[in-house]
Amino acid sequence: MPGATDQTLRPFLWRASKLFPDREVVSRTHDGVERYTYSEYEDRVGQLANALDAAGVERGDRVGTFCWNHHRHFETYFGVPSMGAQLHTINPLLPDHHIQYIVENAADTVLFVDPSLVEKLAGAYDEEVFASVERYVVVGEEVPETSLSPVTDYESFVAEADAAYDWPDLSEEQPAGMCYTSGTTGKPKGVEYTQQMLWSHTMATLPESGLDIRSSDVVMPVVPMFHVNAWGLPFSTTAAGAKHVYPGPSPSPEDLASLIEEEGVTLTAGVPTVWLGLLDYLDENDADISSLDRIVIGGAAAPRSVIRRFDEEYDVDVVHAWGMTEMAPIGTVAHLKPGMESWDREERYEKRAKQGLLASGLEMRVVGDDGEEVEWNGEDFGELWVRGPWVTTEYYERPEANEEDFEGNWLKTGDVVTVDEEGYVQIVDRAKDVIKSGGEWISSVELENSLMAHDDVAEATVVGVPHERWQERPVAFVVPKDGADREALQSELTEMVRAEFPKWWVPDEVMFIEEVPKTATGKFDKKVLREEYDDESIVA
Amino acid sequence: MPGATDQTLRPFLWRASKLFPDREVVSRTHDGVERYTYSEYEDRVGQLANALDAAGVERGDRVGTFCWNHHRHFETYFGVPSMGAQLHTINPLLPDHHIQYIVENAADTVLFVDPSLVEKLAGAYDEEVFASVERYVVVGEEVPETSLSPVTDYESFVAEADAAYDWPDLSEEQPAGMCYTSGTTGKPKGVEYTQQMLWSHTMATLPESGLDIRSSDVVMPVVPMFHVNAWGLPFSTTAAGAKHVYPGPSPSPEDLASLIEEEGVTLTAGVPTVWLGLLDYLDENDADISSLDRIVIGGAAAPRSVIRRFDEEYDVDVVHAWGMTEMAPIGTVAHLKPGMESWDREERYEKRAKQGLLASGLEMRVVGDDGEEVEWNGEDFGELWVRGPWVTTEYYERPEANEEDFEGNWLKTGDVVTVDEEGYVQIVDRAKDVIKSGGEWISSVELENSLMAHDDVAEATVVGVPHERWQERPVAFVVPKDGADREALQSELTEMVRAEFPKWWVPDEVMFIEEVPKTATGKFDKKVLREEYDDESIVA
Ligand SMILES: Nc1ncnc2c1ncn2[C@@H]1O[C@H](COP(=O)(O)OP(=O)(O)OP(=O)(O)O)[C@@H](O)[C@H]1O
Ligand SMILES: Nc1ncnc2c1ncn2[C@@H]1O[C@H](COP(=O)(O)OP(=O)(O)OP(=O)(O)O)[C@@H](O)[C@H]1O
Ligand SMILES: [Mg+2]
Ligand SMILES: [Mg+2]
Repeated sequence: MPGATDQTLRPFLWRASKLFPDREVVSRTHDGVERYTYSEYEDRVGQLANALDAAGVERGDRVGTFCWNHHRHFETYFGVPSMGAQLHTINPLLPDHHIQYIVENAADTVLFVDPSLVEKLAGAYDEEVFASVERYVVVGEEVPETSLSPVTDYESFVAEADAAYDWPDLSEEQPAGMCYTSGTTGKPKGVEYTQQMLWSHTMATLPESGLDIRSSDVVMPVVPMFHVNAWGLPFSTTAAGAKHVYPGPSPSPEDLASLIEEEGVTLTAGVPTVWLGLLDYLDENDADISSLDRIVIGGAAAPRSVIRRFDEEYDVDVVHAWGMTEMAPIGTVAHLKPGMESWDREERYEKRAKQGLLASGLEMRVVGDDGEEVEWNGEDFGELWVRGPWVTTEYYERPEANEEDFEGNWLKTGDVVTVDEEGYVQIVDRAKDVIKSGGEWISSVELENSLMAHDDVAEATVVGVPHERWQERPVAFVVPKDGADREALQSELTEMVRAEFPKWWVPDEVMFIEEVPKTATGKFDKKVLREEYDDESIVA
Repeated sequence: MPGATDQTLRPFLWRASKLFPDREVVSRTHDGVERYTYSEYEDRVGQLANALDAAGVERGDRVGTFCWNHHRHFETYFGVPSMGAQLHTINPLLPDHHIQYIVENAADTVLFVDPSLVEKLAGAYDEEVFASVERYVVVGEEVPETSLSPVTDYESFVAEADAAYDWPDLSEEQPAGMCYTSGTTGKPKGVEYTQQMLWSHTMATLPESGLDIRSSDVVMPVVPMFHVNAWGLPFSTTAAGAKHVYPGPSPSPEDLASLIEEEGVTLTAGVPTVWLGLLDYLDENDADISSLDRIVIGGAAAPRSVIRRFDEEYDVDVVHAWGMTEMAPIGTVAHLKPGMESWDREERYEKRAKQGLLASGLEMRVVGDDGEEVEWNGEDFGELWVRGPWVTTEYYERPEANEEDFEGNWLKTGDVVTVDEEGYVQIVDRAKDVIKSGGEWISSVELENSLMAHDDVAEATVVGVPHERWQERPVAFVVPKDGADREALQSELTEMVRAEFPKWWVPDEVMFIEEVPKTATGKFDKKVLREEYDDESIVA
């Protein structure tokens, strides 16, 4: 049977550099804003590939990056996979023992590391664990004092290399990328992306049913490039021929506002906290963000207040999206359907606050406790299962997790959801966080949202603790705001929940803590609380 | 290495019927306009698949269609491939000997045939050639008098079947579609589309770089569904969750205008002659086509006058596109780049009149006579080569053509093109029609356009005839309008060409004919003229 050419990233680089040669890649760095064109970008990517060849990197080798969002990191996005190696982006915010597990498990041969992260990486260094690493490249113009060795700086590494590179015909099965899950529910799990998966994800993000990216867009990924390839945006932006803006290391709200204003950003993307920070900044400062058309928010639920404020005050659409490392990552996107534009504001915000409609090219089912698919009525919930061309069917070297998380070609996402009559998915909880009490499910996320709405609550989380009679009972952990009357707060919170939810949802205890423990990606780390409070006596 | 789920058409059907259950499929039939929803469509498709199962159709069997554009034909588009069989759309306008070659070559097991085409098919019937065909299904509610046997009508065929169908997990390598080239340059050649090719093409048509289809669109494919799957629109429209409008058998300009008005069509597509007909109709009649946003024109060059008239008189963008059966078919699309919207009209029309920018996901090169890539300056020309995930790498059972038309994974398109500085491709000629005179190339298409601009010319074509000294010389074949002064016309035409082109482009003869011979798809059939005038003496 005749076939077609393999699906690889190469045509995206080809198209941007040939059809949009003058469109820009802009990058905030320690020394101000740098910029060049796609045409120069292509040359730099060619140089990088030649330098990697010269350094002995071979097809299938893994090349790790330990970097923020900037143009050099973006050069590795096409340079590494298109020469046939595998780009492995590492989250530098992880604790040392996770970094060690990840580097050892992936067996990276070269590590690219930002100047400001050299110390962090050196701190995690362990001779045995890092044995596969043959070279460190500090992604800048010079090498700081470090124990990492052998080490070069990026500019010297590529300086002598030719810009022309004869990109090979790769198989679409060739591993092109790798990323580890955030480790919210346990040890991070490695997910490999083939050329085909990245091609598919890229194509799927371009149309309306994805992120709706056009050549006229100016795209600024604030989500780190070590979080599932900045949600694929560096690839998608290139495929669209759009302009890139990278906000560099640890951008402040001020940095973001000024990049939006100066570069004419139309589309940006990141986790909710980033946008809360920007809204606060905009309250106090003059900045013109009128070029901005939409913000993709994902990784955690987009608060309705953020959606409302961006719409009402800045005429910016928040595009709420849900995804996972396992799916490169886009799964659902909360676009409005034809006709919904004319709905009134609050109805629109209600849809936009959900995680959205499944992207075109994927399939899903929602499986209830009884193994049957649940009804799409916005009420019944079950675990979301997904499958599709950019959804993995396996973790890297984790047979136990494979056993648990897959069923045939379905990925069991571990997210518990409802689906409404219009097909909008809403995440109710993680399966591991759902509290099972007397045979009924209690959504920890809904309880948390309710508690956090109280003026005296800074943060709150709800965890199930074991209970003899009810199997599990909810316990609330609350960080009160300074000066709050704790005793009054305790009873007010209990009253509040009682008024809003079924009786058995009311937490058996409201405990005050100093801070909710967080993971490296800023998510609530319920594992820590569960371990600490794994004790029936609390709610006995 | 972990992979992902195979790329198949199934998720597009899933998405439309589950997320857009109430959006409509509208179809003009002999008995007026019929309509149903995606939700009913899904049931009908399930019924069809069950009926095919019951009829003994097995995975990999070919199912042929001999039908116009309507809802039942659309049912075969998902029903046949998604059960694992291969949808083979046959052009009923082909001469009998081509239909015979095609049915015998494809070895179809079931043939779906429109009531109005039963006679044509029966006329091409030959016992030996049609030996593979086990059943004929007349696509309507009853069977007309016919010698075809055994024969059922479509509605009886599906009536008893269950609507629920357990769609199998198919391999992306599974053949899903088949179409033969138009036979402009010789015997039609079979092209097979795998599930993966159709998935890729569908995804690629959705974004801006493709046909830019959104859920709010109302899409009416006028291009026949037997011409490369109506350019993939039935699949793309479904993947977008948009509304379908099928214009039925032999729609008149009046039918098209009234469907646009009544159904609110936003996007339509077809070959240039259709739109010339619509413009003429609109000149004489009142019709409101204000819902129409854009018309995709392809298959042959879109005349600049059509582009201009639709823009100036109806505020409709003509989206000129180039494609081939070999590529399912979309290759290039003439979208304007960011910034070009503000160009003045004529400059914009010049870009839109070119065949356009290569779609995202493909790669191309333009190879000159010397085997080197030509410069992108809008002047130098060479043969266009393309490759990509929806471009075939082989014809079905045609080793000689495979030898000639492919080089590695590149398809040598046989189209001679220029590419301008902005990357817009313009078709100059077919390689087989280009006239090679004294070592220089002469574009037959450019000469034809020039001749056809004369008020007294109805049609004109230019063909190379053998010449002892110059190898080949151009000869013009002109169909004069009624009442034209032939002698005056002859010298005026020669003068006109002399003023516009290099001296050696001037045709050695201008010959008057009654009609330019045409192929079954309405393209000029230069083979016929070349055979008839294969004689040096004409230009000696
Ligand atoms: N828009 C969103 N709203 C709510 N939750 C979201 C959203 N987007 C992503 N998530 C959560 O993030 C998860 C995916 O995150 P990621 O792949 O980074 O790792 P993780 O699931 O946090 O960590 P691990 O799998 O190692 O436990 C989803 O399964 C979901 O629980
Ligand atoms: N927009 C366009 N402008 C000019 N020519 C076009 C356009 N679109 C398609 N074509 C022509 O149509 C060809 C593709 O047509 P198709 O695949 O139907 O078969 P064919 O090439 O006409 O027939 P055969 O390959 O059997 O000789 C292209 O190669 C090109 O020559
Ligand atoms: Mg996870
Ligand atoms: Mg052809």
